[in-house]
Amino acid sequence: MAQQERGLRTRRQVLEAAAEVFAELGYGASTISEIISRAGVTKGALYFHFTSKEELLQTVLDEQVRDFAVPERPSKLQEWADLGMLLAHRTFRDPLLRAGVRLSADSHIRERMVKGPWNSWITLSTGLLEQARARGELLPHVDPVETATFTLQSWVGVQLVVQASEGPEAMEARVATLFRHVLPAIAVPAVLVALDVSHDRGARIAVEMEYEPTAV
Amino acid sequence: MAQQERGLRTRRQVLEAAAEVFAELGYGASTISEIISRAGVTKGALYFHFTSKEELLQTVLDEQVRDFAVPERPSKLQEWADLGMLLAHRTFRDPLLRAGVRLSADSHIRERMVKGPWNSWITLSTGLLEQARARGELLPHVDPVETATFTLQSWVGVQLVVQASEGPEAMEARVATLFRHVLPAIAVPAVLVALDVSHDRGARIAVEMEYEPTAV
Repeated sequence: MAQQERGLRTRRQVLEAAAEVFAELGYGASTISEIISRAGVTKGALYFHFTSKEELLQTVLDEQVRDFAVPERPSKLQEWADLGMLLAHRTFRDPLLRAGVRLSADSHIRERMVKGPWNSWITLSTGLLEQARARGELLPHVDPVETATFTLQSWVGVQLVVQASEGPEAMEARVATLFRHVLPAIAVPAVLVALDVSHDRGARIAVEMEYEPTAV
Repeated sequence: MAQQERGLRTRRQVLEAAAEVFAELGYGASTISEIISRAGVTKGALYFHFTSKEELLQTVLDEQVRDFAVPERPSKLQEWADLGMLLAHRTFRDPLLRAGVRLSADSHIRERMVKGPWNSWITLSTGLLEQARARGELLPHVDPVETATFTLQSWVGVQLVVQASEGPEAMEARVATLFRHVLPAIAVPAVLVALDVSHDRGARIAVEMEYEPTAV
């Protein structure tokens, strides 16, 4: 059991090192030896968990979204906004998410982001919006898939422009702006008035969940 | 005069050829000789107008937004939405705009997009929103710079994801979705109810302006 835990820890260590190297150098310029040196593991340890750079890339993409969850709330729309605010808080703190920002600039990898993590975010987001609809929180014309898809697209643009202009520290404020612009188009007024999308929402949820990934 | 006009036509021909080559190959892989061959001009003609590939890039960025205008409307918010809908219609039809989509994937060029065309769009958009505010079309809490900045960020994301997933033909419908999600957060109800952001809005404005850039 202790051995299995050690194995999982090494696997995570390698994966985060790969994500960091991808984020800094881009996928093309990254090498296995750089990842080994960053992770502080042996070549054998890396190859025990991953067969290739390609498999590391696929795992970085797959595990960006895996196990991502927010605490339950009385309002499902609040949960939906919390998902985006917590993601904004983590984007430049979590190595896998940070790698996603850099990797999505590459047009070949972007197509894999569309089928992988971006599609997973849309599915997760659509599910919460459908629960919100079932509880009468949404205005009658709202199409959960359409709103989830637009919000993902918008989120990708905010992340990309913020990174190229103001820098990571502006991310949470800009995503709060996103939700303040989108929620009035979809929420019934009695729900809208009670929603919290202040800038520090993501940070407060992270504390509430007692989980903070590797700091920047 | 005829000679000057010919000169301008050649200049535009070279610029559009450069934009097409950048859009297809990316900036790094593009060469002056490919641009000359695409434009069907002599080497001397190209160098008469542009001193380098770098100057061609800067001009492609600068002239994306230059002279972009929409017809006047009784509602300034409609003009604001028209700007986005016409831009969506032209994005994959105009070689300079199409080049912008591809070039913004490169992180170095993206920083120049931020200072150049993206900043120009925000300025143009802020100006229209301020006129809308002066006419009482905006809800009292709206900050024109914030809304213009968010809309540009969102627009960039829509363009990027649409290109990597559904393809250019979905662009106008997705930008219509963007405006249907943002306008309720900023428009007073009496203005909101009269706004037109249907999918074919951009195409209709293009016909109205009797100007259609090079077809795809």
